[in-house]
Amino acid sequence: MEEADVKKYTEISKLGEFGLIKHLTDKIELLQPSTLKGVGDDAAVIAPPAAGEVMLLSTDMMAEGIHFELTYTPLRHLGYKTVAVNVSDICAMNGEPTQVVVSIAVSNQYSVESLDEIYKGIKFACKEYKVDLVGGDTTSSRSGLVIDVTILGKAPKEKVVYRNGAKPGDLLCVSGDLGASYAGLLLLEHARKAVGADPAKKPELQGYGYVLQKQLMPRARVDIVEMFRASDVVPTSMIDISDGLASEIHHICNASQTGCLLEELKVPIHEETTKVAKENGVPPSLFALSGGEDYELLFTINPADLKKLKEAGMITVIGEILPAEDGIMIAAKDGKMHPLAVQGWDGLKAK
Amino acid sequence: MEEADVKKYTEISKLGEFGLIKHLTDKIELLQPSTLKGVGDDAAVIAPPAAGEVMLLSTDMMAEGIHFELTYTPLRHLGYKTVAVNVSDICAMNGEPTQVVVSIAVSNQYSVESLDEIYKGIKFACKEYKVDLVGGDTTSSRSGLVIDVTILGKAPKEKVVYRNGAKPGDLLCVSGDLGASYAGLLLLEHARKAVGADPAKKPELQGYGYVLQKQLMPRARVDIVEMFRASDVVPTSMIDISDGLASEIHHICNASQTGCLLEELKVPIHEETTKVAKENGVPPSLFALSGGEDYELLFTINPADLKKLKEAGMITVIGEILPAEDGIMIAAKDGKMHPLAVQGWDGLKAK
Repeated sequence: MEEADVKKYTEISKLGEFGLIKHLTDKIELLQPSTLKGVGDDAAVIAPPAAGEVMLLSTDMMAEGIHFELTYTPLRHLGYKTVAVNVSDICAMNGEPTQVVVSIAVSNQYSVESLDEIYKGIKFACKEYKVDLVGGDTTSSRSGLVIDVTILGKAPKEKVVYRNGAKPGDLLCVSGDLGASYAGLLLLEHARKAVGADPAKKPELQGYGYVLQKQLMPRARVDIVEMFRASDVVPTSMIDISDGLASEIHHICNASQTGCLLEELKVPIHEETTKVAKENGVPPSLFALSGGEDYELLFTINPADLKKLKEAGMITVIGEILPAEDGIMIAAKDGKMHPLAVQGWDGLKAK
Repeated sequence: MEEADVKKYTEISKLGEFGLIKHLTDKIELLQPSTLKGVGDDAAVIAPPAAGEVMLLSTDMMAEGIHFELTYTPLRHLGYKTVAVNVSDICAMNGEPTQVVVSIAVSNQYSVESLDEIYKGIKFACKEYKVDLVGGDTTSSRSGLVIDVTILGKAPKEKVVYRNGAKPGDLLCVSGDLGASYAGLLLLEHARKAVGADPAKKPELQGYGYVLQKQLMPRARVDIVEMFRASDVVPTSMIDISDGLASEIHHICNASQTGCLLEELKVPIHEETTKVAKENGVPPSLFALSGGEDYELLFTINPADLKKLKEAGMITVIGEILPAEDGIMIAAKDGKMHPLAVQGWDGLKAK
């Protein structure tokens, strides 16, 4: 082995709790003027938002073996993703993210260098989304890695979008394309099994860059929220797609007490997603409807607002909100109408 | 077995993720007028505090086998404690807690009923501290139980107390008494080992109610913060005692760039704590200095403020802030001065 290949790994216990926190949060750049005090005291201190604005608060936890497998999830991507999925929750309220706190439970088997990798991803995401990392907790765990991020955001009070504002006649729209994240996950799972059976085998992941990126490093759609602001459009309802399109449509319709007609042929699906679906012998729309983890935005708008939307190419109209008595329906490819079934990914049920 | 003894346990998977969240957050009482929207959307919506006030944000994670052992920690107490330790962080900034979000990772082996127990404790604490539970995440975990609570609070901007404001001549004070939580932990650990060696044996915990309560269900000192408000006194620096008095004194002195003289004989210790320490053949002050998890408040005040403090009996003056060059010292029982050593409980180093 060449000398350059010999990496030094530092045991977490060498730094101790305070040393570790100092090491991980050193040189954190603060970008939000509202951050009056970041890491380093019993709590962060945040200036209230401008007059007429409210604060948004959300949390998302990711656990090893449930939300990610370390065999194919680079730690840096994992750090990025835990922040991005929280930013996505703030986007889904039509808000702007401002601060995060991050708690991590790790086994003592982890090195300081592996925590550094997680933090590199966290800091990269914070920079991209202009969010300040203002606090956290790092503890050992008897077992798997668990990361919990809590996010604070803000929005003008009258522009906050809830799930329950959809009205019959509203257009049902989605950002980006759907099902790609699940396609990426499937590829990674197959690769893991193939390499597990024959460690000499190299996983064939070439040509699948898009779906792998959507799975490992999904981006929160802050650009869509910016477009709403620039176009002076406020969606009537919104949710981010973490559990599959079908499940999220049910959430909006149930909260808004409406029905819906989803047009299957209009659901945007990337060509790589289609390719993976076909290789697995399933219809691509199944990935889009039930795959989950796309972190695209599903929202409804007044039809009169459609022409106001600048860069409307970023979104796709996929259906229409109906009165509750019409039910939550899908117009399938075969031209027939069916009730829209939910087979969403369910963290607790599936595993 | 009597029929009444046969309890029904519900598997978490029966409810699924959404059903579980609905079950756990059903009938949550909201007490804070600033909570515009609690559980049920992508994020909670919080009205900003009054003019001149700032927000406080903190997080604390507790992991099974590290912060608690389920063999002797009732789940209800655990739920209470995770909220209380977060409230304590807000108290340490001289603030008032307002909202929490709670993330829990549990093994699929857990029943819905055991999660209910954790939530009972969480809701009890929320009611006691007038804090609204406004969101969270529940996920399965491959292994141990991990609970992460993030708390939001508020305070008038000019009354926020940091660690770094202590000045030479200030009095060093502490609320309540110290070392009790560690005494309680030691009793519980001994009992666990005794029962482990002989399951027929009943642990002898009678007569130790105070220290057991301090370990299993420590109360955050919101009453001390209220006293400061009522007395119109703002401490010059403050921290909560989670890692032992010695460690926290070092934090305040390092942040404030001061020295300190702690008088060992003045450190308040409960008689039950003294009893447990003696039974274990160690000086009670060791529990107070290095035990941790007391969640009392350590703070410094201008000496002129001491007489202004109403109900001053709730606090004890235990020393004085000195110039940095005098060092961080303890006047020990033997009358001699020593540098104050830190042997604090350290979640990552100790285990």
